[in-house]
Amino acid sequence: MNQGRPVRIDLNSDVGESFGMYTLGDDAAIIASVSSVNVAGGFHAGDPSTIRATCAAAAAAGVTVGAHPGYRDLAGFGRRFIDMEPAELSNDVIYQIGAVQALARAAGTSVRYVKPHGALYNTIAHHPVQAQAVLDAILAVDPTLPLMTLPNSEVGRLARASGLRTVSEAFADRAYNVDGSLVSRTKPGAVLHSVTAVTDQVLRLVLEGQVVAIDGTVIDVPVESICLHGDTPDAVNLAAAIRAALEGAGVTIASFV
Amino acid sequence: MNQGRPVRIDLNSDVGESFGMYTLGDDAAIIASVSSVNVAGGFHAGDPSTIRATCAAAAAAGVTVGAHPGYRDLAGFGRRFIDMEPAELSNDVIYQIGAVQALARAAGTSVRYVKPHGALYNTIAHHPVQAQAVLDAILAVDPTLPLMTLPNSEVGRLARASGLRTVSEAFADRAYNVDGSLVSRTKPGAVLHSVTAVTDQVLRLVLEGQVVAIDGTVIDVPVESICLHGDTPDAVNLAAAIRAALEGAGVTIASFV
Amino acid sequence: MNQGRPVRIDLNSDVGESFGMYTLGDDAAIIASVSSVNVAGGFHAGDPSTIRATCAAAAAAGVTVGAHPGYRDLAGFGRRFIDMEPAELSNDVIYQIGAVQALARAAGTSVRYVKPHGALYNTIAHHPVQAQAVLDAILAVDPTLPLMTLPNSEVGRLARASGLRTVSEAFADRAYNVDGSLVSRTKPGAVLHSVTAVTDQVLRLVLEGQVVAIDGTVIDVPVESICLHGDTPDAVNLAAAIRAALEGAGVTIASFV
Amino acid sequence: MNQGRPVRIDLNSDVGESFGMYTLGDDAAIIASVSSVNVAGGFHAGDPSTIRATCAAAAAAGVTVGAHPGYRDLAGFGRRFIDMEPAELSNDVIYQIGAVQALARAAGTSVRYVKPHGALYNTIAHHPVQAQAVLDAILAVDPTLPLMTLPNSEVGRLARASGLRTVSEAFADRAYNVDGSLVSRTKPGAVLHSVTAVTDQVLRLVLEGQVVAIDGTVIDVPVESICLHGDTPDAVNLAAAIRAALEGAGVTIASFV
Repeated sequence: MNQGRPVRIDLNSDVGESFGMYTLGDDAAIIASVSSVNVAGGFHAGDPSTIRATCAAAAAAGVTVGAHPGYRDLAGFGRRFIDMEPAELSNDVIYQIGAVQALARAAGTSVRYVKPHGALYNTIAHHPVQAQAVLDAILAVDPTLPLMTLPNSEVGRLARASGLRTVSEAFADRAYNVDGSLVSRTKPGAVLHSVTAVTDQVLRLVLEGQVVAIDGTVIDVPVESICLHGDTPDAVNLAAAIRAALEGAGVTIASFV
Repeated sequence: MNQGRPVRIDLNSDVGESFGMYTLGDDAAIIASVSSVNVAGGFHAGDPSTIRATCAAAAAAGVTVGAHPGYRDLAGFGRRFIDMEPAELSNDVIYQIGAVQALARAAGTSVRYVKPHGALYNTIAHHPVQAQAVLDAILAVDPTLPLMTLPNSEVGRLARASGLRTVSEAFADRAYNVDGSLVSRTKPGAVLHSVTAVTDQVLRLVLEGQVVAIDGTVIDVPVESICLHGDTPDAVNLAAAIRAALEGAGVTIASFV
Repeated sequence: MNQGRPVRIDLNSDVGESFGMYTLGDDAAIIASVSSVNVAGGFHAGDPSTIRATCAAAAAAGVTVGAHPGYRDLAGFGRRFIDMEPAELSNDVIYQIGAVQALARAAGTSVRYVKPHGALYNTIAHHPVQAQAVLDAILAVDPTLPLMTLPNSEVGRLARASGLRTVSEAFADRAYNVDGSLVSRTKPGAVLHSVTAVTDQVLRLVLEGQVVAIDGTVIDVPVESICLHGDTPDAVNLAAAIRAALEGAGVTIASFV
Repeated sequence: MNQGRPVRIDLNSDVGESFGMYTLGDDAAIIASVSSVNVAGGFHAGDPSTIRATCAAAAAAGVTVGAHPGYRDLAGFGRRFIDMEPAELSNDVIYQIGAVQALARAAGTSVRYVKPHGALYNTIAHHPVQAQAVLDAILAVDPTLPLMTLPNSEVGRLARASGLRTVSEAFADRAYNVDGSLVSRTKPGAVLHSVTAVTDQVLRLVLEGQVVAIDGTVIDVPVESICLHGDTPDAVNLAAAIRAALEGAGVTIASFV
């Protein structure tokens, strides 16, 4: 998919995940480093005022807004699988997308893509029933909205079969297995900690469309966006370092839309 | 405002207020009697699957859909005043309208007006700060959406000053004070219980634009919609009786949009 | 375990599952038929005022109160598996038991046993990690509280190994496999619908400690309590019929505590 | 009430207010400075695992645990007045106290007093109906639990009339009106910002039972506990400074129980 050297790449990050008195992440700092932001939909995180303020900050920075729906599980931050009926899941996703759309509009911007959150993101990578439920939601709301997902995910295949555009993303700080899947967080080496290791991986992903898997094999990983974390001070610094490394290599940071 | 005899009137009712395993009201029955339905937005009542199914039923019946946002208070069914910051209230209302818009779209229809629920409805009739917060929400989402409210309410005055259209509603089964306000539910005679008393009041409201106040005085009450309750079997029967009485008097039941 | 013919049996049912404006089940009617009630803990259902009123009604009727904790999932009524960390599950269960204990005390009674709800009940029948989490909760709150569960469940085995008392229950209207497990609801014949079939099964369970499995084999099912449903008018009538049949056979309906 | 110079004083602070992924305050640091902690009950803040961990930390430090119930308003952090029915409020408070009691027991300690949170605390200082509702809750759960409140509050008067013990608290960093009430946060000078001003006020409160009101008048303020804030790094430092100043003046920091 990445023939030759792409001259541009999208950087995305989760934002808008504060809730009431609770602050999570430094959205202002992360918005300064990325080109797309996944704005929480209120079920796993994000209250309406946070969502609107985040959309306004993204609009002011020229950053693209995506809706970031999750399971209805504020206590678990959407990180726990919930064995839901697909019709209910689909309607929960529509509800969240619509809510973010309205707040984005109020903030002078609009929702341009959808990226599910946490356990929902992970589940639909391999669970065809919940995957189709999420796709049905996007199709019902606006079939022109791309879905951001892993390359080779089940939801990606089903999305393309449904006529939905997909945006393939890679992770800056996660190690890869030789089949292109992520190394489980429970295994040693799953997360890259050094700035150099991370920026090297990002540059190779963006410039070559490749990654060095955990066993040393070089594999192809097509990528249109790189996911950065923004919920710790270190992560914010890392995001800035990744942006600087890419710009230093002549890569333009720009949204895929 | 009602010059001569109107030949048409809107009937509205609250619907979509079930939640998960909990069923409230007989939405199918009430949709058969009214021309507009106020669909809960998920904060005081209504889960996404209920909202969508209710919108689909309304669409199938040719009934107009309105968004029915409330305070974030499922435990209190939105009937308890919450002393919120206006910016937060505004964003909570935008969130709910957007959510219902997306589910309405998925159901093949669209949100055509806004009617706040319960304590929020009552509060903005007299509380200018919360009233303006609700209006700011509608202006931000879609300034062509009318607001349904009491005639002479504070929010109605502010809405018209903001350029928003208002739809004045009257209550079929509530007694009126001589100044056009509703008799408090804590006073005797506040609620009309006989079918005849209710249908007489509705016919006079619709045909004459007048109501007999609790002290016997005849007062003018301009009305574009009559609010019916739908959450009890009696209320469903009463709704059918009101519709029959109006049709028997040659009145067309039709939405204001 | 049931040597000879028991002269007494407990009947239990889920109650206290209303929430705010939402009414579920006819708790007054079901309390008149049973000897123990499983009172919702507020996470899957049950608000504090409902919990207290239900405990007061149980106290007035001389019916034993158990705590009925569930997953934190009001929208799903606790019927959806949530893949929780065991420590979090344990603390969620402690929280709910403590809340019901305090409201029971306010109502003049006390919590005498624990029966988990819905998906949590089903999960811990076979999931040792979540099962142990629930047991850890009971051990932390009050190790004298018995756990109500299926005979031969994983949680039952672990409970007895932990020194907790278990109370084995059977289901009045569910068909059994030859190994003593319940026939899945997705299979034909899983639920008994005729009053005669149900009362016959209950009498055989109580008087003989046996049930006729779905393949016709007679199997032993040790039972100290029979679970009745109470959330439909039919269920309430069935509960009364079961009680009448047992009393007609000389069986005393009494709690196990 | 403070005849002569007290040799001991209680310091209290709100803790246990994190929720799921959301961290609020540095509970470990604040527990090192105070003698009593007000542990959130889960309605305005605090999940069960946070509540238990906080109780365990308090137990390890020899710090007394109080229950800190609030309005059911996680989105508003319990800082918004809710116009609730008193019976419902009472049951909400019982529920929260019971939940904290069970988690405290699991953590090897117990609830020794009750201090309502935020808008509920402020409301019951002057609202007799909600005040009595809170007192009814404490009386129903355990009438030996003291209520922590402002001196001269409505709830304090009603509590003493009901036979409940009250613990009077003062605020380290808030300016006082001449009638002993707090200067509204909307007025200039309402909050003391310098460490010296705060420690001076605390020493005078503890050693003399007096405070210099905002108009310069010296007034009597009987005090058994000083409330410290713990939700910012500055607040944690201030708490340590207050403790050091008191200990330097020979005052023993110890709980009132």
